[in-house]
Amino acid sequence: MTEIPTLAQAGDIILLVSSQKKRYIVRLDPLATIQTHRGVLPHTDLIGKPYGTRAFSHLGSPFLLLQPSIADLITELKRNTQIMYPKEIGYVLMNLDIGPGRRVLEAGTGSGGLTTALAYMVGPQGVVYSYDYRGQMQNLARKNLERIGLADRVFFKEREISQGFDETGLDAVFLDVPNPYDYVEQARSALKSGGFFGSIQPTTNQVSRLIIALRRANFGFIDVCEILLRYYKPVAERLRPVDRMVAHTGYLIFARSLIDIIEEDGIPPTEYALAGQVFETDDISSASQREDPED
Amino acid sequence: MTEIPTLAQAGDIILLVSSQKKRYIVRLDPLATIQTHRGVLPHTDLIGKPYGTRAFSHLGSPFLLLQPSIADLITELKRNTQIMYPKEIGYVLMNLDIGPGRRVLEAGTGSGGLTTALAYMVGPQGVVYSYDYRGQMQNLARKNLERIGLADRVFFKEREISQGFDETGLDAVFLDVPNPYDYVEQARSALKSGGFFGSIQPTTNQVSRLIIALRRANFGFIDVCEILLRYYKPVAERLRPVDRMVAHTGYLIFARSLIDIIEEDGIPPTEYALAGQVFETDDISSASQREDPED
Amino acid sequence: MTEIPTLAQAGDIILLVSSQKKRYIVRLDPLATIQTHRGVLPHTDLIGKPYGTRAFSHLGSPFLLLQPSIADLITELKRNTQIMYPKEIGYVLMNLDIGPGRRVLEAGTGSGGLTTALAYMVGPQGVVYSYDYRGQMQNLARKNLERIGLADRVFFKEREISQGFDETGLDAVFLDVPNPYDYVEQARSALKSGGFFGSIQPTTNQVSRLIIALRRANFGFIDVCEILLRYYKPVAERLRPVDRMVAHTGYLIFARSLIDIIEEDGIPPTEYALAGQVFETDDISSASQREDPED
Amino acid sequence: MTEIPTLAQAGDIILLVSSQKKRYIVRLDPLATIQTHRGVLPHTDLIGKPYGTRAFSHLGSPFLLLQPSIADLITELKRNTQIMYPKEIGYVLMNLDIGPGRRVLEAGTGSGGLTTALAYMVGPQGVVYSYDYRGQMQNLARKNLERIGLADRVFFKEREISQGFDETGLDAVFLDVPNPYDYVEQARSALKSGGFFGSIQPTTNQVSRLIIALRRANFGFIDVCEILLRYYKPVAERLRPVDRMVAHTGYLIFARSLIDIIEEDGIPPTEYALAGQVFETDDISSASQREDPED
Repeated sequence: MTEIPTLAQAGDIILLVSSQKKRYIVRLDPLATIQTHRGVLPHTDLIGKPYGTRAFSHLGSPFLLLQPSIADLITELKRNTQIMYPKEIGYVLMNLDIGPGRRVLEAGTGSGGLTTALAYMVGPQGVVYSYDYRGQMQNLARKNLERIGLADRVFFKEREISQGFDETGLDAVFLDVPNPYDYVEQARSALKSGGFFGSIQPTTNQVSRLIIALRRANFGFIDVCEILLRYYKPVAERLRPVDRMVAHTGYLIFARSLIDIIEEDGIPPTEYALAGQVFETDDISSASQREDPED
Repeated sequence: MTEIPTLAQAGDIILLVSSQKKRYIVRLDPLATIQTHRGVLPHTDLIGKPYGTRAFSHLGSPFLLLQPSIADLITELKRNTQIMYPKEIGYVLMNLDIGPGRRVLEAGTGSGGLTTALAYMVGPQGVVYSYDYRGQMQNLARKNLERIGLADRVFFKEREISQGFDETGLDAVFLDVPNPYDYVEQARSALKSGGFFGSIQPTTNQVSRLIIALRRANFGFIDVCEILLRYYKPVAERLRPVDRMVAHTGYLIFARSLIDIIEEDGIPPTEYALAGQVFETDDISSASQREDPED
Repeated sequence: MTEIPTLAQAGDIILLVSSQKKRYIVRLDPLATIQTHRGVLPHTDLIGKPYGTRAFSHLGSPFLLLQPSIADLITELKRNTQIMYPKEIGYVLMNLDIGPGRRVLEAGTGSGGLTTALAYMVGPQGVVYSYDYRGQMQNLARKNLERIGLADRVFFKEREISQGFDETGLDAVFLDVPNPYDYVEQARSALKSGGFFGSIQPTTNQVSRLIIALRRANFGFIDVCEILLRYYKPVAERLRPVDRMVAHTGYLIFARSLIDIIEEDGIPPTEYALAGQVFETDDISSASQREDPED
Repeated sequence: MTEIPTLAQAGDIILLVSSQKKRYIVRLDPLATIQTHRGVLPHTDLIGKPYGTRAFSHLGSPFLLLQPSIADLITELKRNTQIMYPKEIGYVLMNLDIGPGRRVLEAGTGSGGLTTALAYMVGPQGVVYSYDYRGQMQNLARKNLERIGLADRVFFKEREISQGFDETGLDAVFLDVPNPYDYVEQARSALKSGGFFGSIQPTTNQVSRLIIALRRANFGFIDVCEILLRYYKPVAERLRPVDRMVAHTGYLIFARSLIDIIEEDGIPPTEYALAGQVFETDDISSASQREDPED
């Protein structure tokens, strides 16, 4: 009836949660101590304890000892930029086909939120290249990755991406920069043929400009979408959504790097947006057709 | 300026897309042939071709040759049940901490949509246990997994899950069955302490019953949410959402298997729902607080 | 090219907006004065001024002089309860057929948000009956209605609604109380045959109970829905949704009071929920079919 | 316990619903007959019957006799254009302050969906001016309005709106045309000072252009929003959203005609978009602040 206790060990990345739901993520080190707003816990009090049990600070305050999920790691990151959240990251992973062994590039690095997820998912056989022209950002991201033991899968490159990328034949490229439309050629050059391109952009104006740039650079299967996530109060007798939610983090744009293009409905795709003409695609985009088998 | 061509090879899983966006996923085999509604293509016409280029059927119809993403693999699955879609699967992966090397269990198998994603993400070092009492389902799912070369990471078990699971100390358990509230004890026994629990349920009534069962079985950090995905027509000059979207696939429920529970606000969590009393949690759930750093 | 100035007159209900978007709604009275956080304005400074122009406080702070919309009146109401908002109220008006000359009943009164909209829309020939057992609530609502000159269309009744309503043959009844399922018979008795019923409820549990009670009491055409409203930052060069939005105010439930019921698909509607059996209605409810002409 | 029967009378606009939920809206005329797909009903069979009861066709098929709501009237309109739906119309009414006695203008007429709602809500003392350059459209809309007895409140004007409007001092103007940005000056001239402006636009590009035009023409309090409506299957034991929903009908844009403008945060509003500079308004727009009193 009861699960087998898994014991916290030195070197583990752990999540400690207070009764006020304040969260602490640390790597267990026999010589270290956690300072909380409710007292101090030496790591030695945690090492050897089963996950899922309570520990107490020197003031007697209880804390739950847990292993963090990748979602916990990302949302608890030290940051000085807007970061991507698990709802977008999870969908990006699926659409860019990120998994064990992949070689993937991102720009910019930012605080390392997506970097963390990519590094975790590509596994020890994969590799992540992360470009940012801001050295200060990369230092923060590197520290975040080091703290959770994933930095050895990431090559950080402090570089203006207008100068291009060093890599070629990559599985996927993700651009989280304000002007991705200026770098689609660089992205193409880094990708394998047929490779996966993704981006996140806050405004509709950026989305429009990126669509034009992607079509010009012979990308195809362009999809644009947004994800809304709504939480519920987990109370059985009074089940209802929470009062407030995030309305927008960004639009996701996906595309595939193509060598040939196939005309649809007699209209060459590269002319879609260039001519500024009114052009209506099918009612439901390719991606949402896939989303819904009932159509 | 141009990417390095990646050539399709015998044994590759490939995606072929017609000019009407009809999709075909096959494993390349020099002896095989693809039958499409627009003519026939022998695989030998595809082997050695660069991804991202066109191939032509014997009727002259063009098809784009691509590597499928994991999202493509799932949405193109042969199915005889409702399947989970990438928008939910991506978020489940993040919240159950699925990644290379994990040991994870799901029930039921269904058509193998989630199974496919789990098998891909745990990598060659990980393992997936997939339970379903319907042998017919498991045969379909096994064929789906074999077709894409991931079946060797999955143990299919034809079993009534009321009889319990064989495994213990697992990293995560996901229940996609109509009555998950009847099996939370079995899930607990299979999990490591502090392990990750997830479920998807179509109705609010099931969500309420599952919340009660989880609290009774000492699960904590219960989160309930839903994900809305909206696609846009990818036309730069006339950017707008598509006309129709999926309104509901299911509610996602997440929880952690705990040994101890910490009281919040002086109310023991196990009494939340049992007493049938009105209980209001914080306005924003723990998860959505995490979602939004600005609060 | 320029519009004809409309001048503010004594007796007008006006909206004054500061440069920080703080809002004040008052009835212009030559003897009165507005106290703001940025100084004082005698009403005589406003009387005779054109709407759409600025007035200045004695400290020199500018305020725009406007006529409030009914949405402004509702959102600026003095309140001590959760109120309904324009997004729900507008849809309720359409579905309960509220318009000039209607006779409509609501319970409870609350702070008078919906009361305000109903009183405005039924016009001088219509009438609103507003029940609440809390005298304190009704006093607040009455003051709110008096302040904007609509109180003479409303009969406030301080009463437990379990005792029934005095009226019969009404066009519409709206229940905004926590247990509407206890009062559907009272609602029926107050309605004309075929009359319009509506309710707003925060939790799914209340919705389920109300559906059962409505079916038992021979209501038909039951619709349940929710409305999400998302604002955008009105910046042309950087168009994007705001960061946060309201995730939930309540579920709307609509129904018609019927004398006869027509069986659908061979299943008598009154048995839908009573038997506790699994029953799936058509994929798209009657109302959403109406919503979408493409189906 | 039972409501007072209201009897259908000659001249009433009635809604007849078949057991397959097919809907018929007619004006009762002792000499007329309804042809349905399930048989014929002479109006004399309906006149004198209580609303909420069944009538039978000559083939014995049952039909429920009801009074239509304004939402029913709009969604059952004969149409040859995309029409606005009740979810948007209800919110437009609230924000443009449409009610008994108002004088309001719309362009274009289209099939008369919004016209119907406006004519109903302004009551016998109000008036609607409806412009469209397509005579064929106006004929259809006029017939739709005549059928339900509201045509006498509407002045139809077949006119290119670039030539301006005849009216001045109107309470509200609503533009449902593809290029509203070309007519904001005409709208201004027709409005009273401080008057209400509204528009619905399908694409983000149109929204951006309209925002610029409105700022140039001295409109203020610009709000942009969209409304999502999700229906639930009304089944108590299995409560859940329907599978599919409308993803987009249009963006709503609201503004007020101003004579003076107040600078916010030291930036003159007319420069917002003209300069093409990056300008971020407050996180939550004025309208959504109003939406949520808890912030």
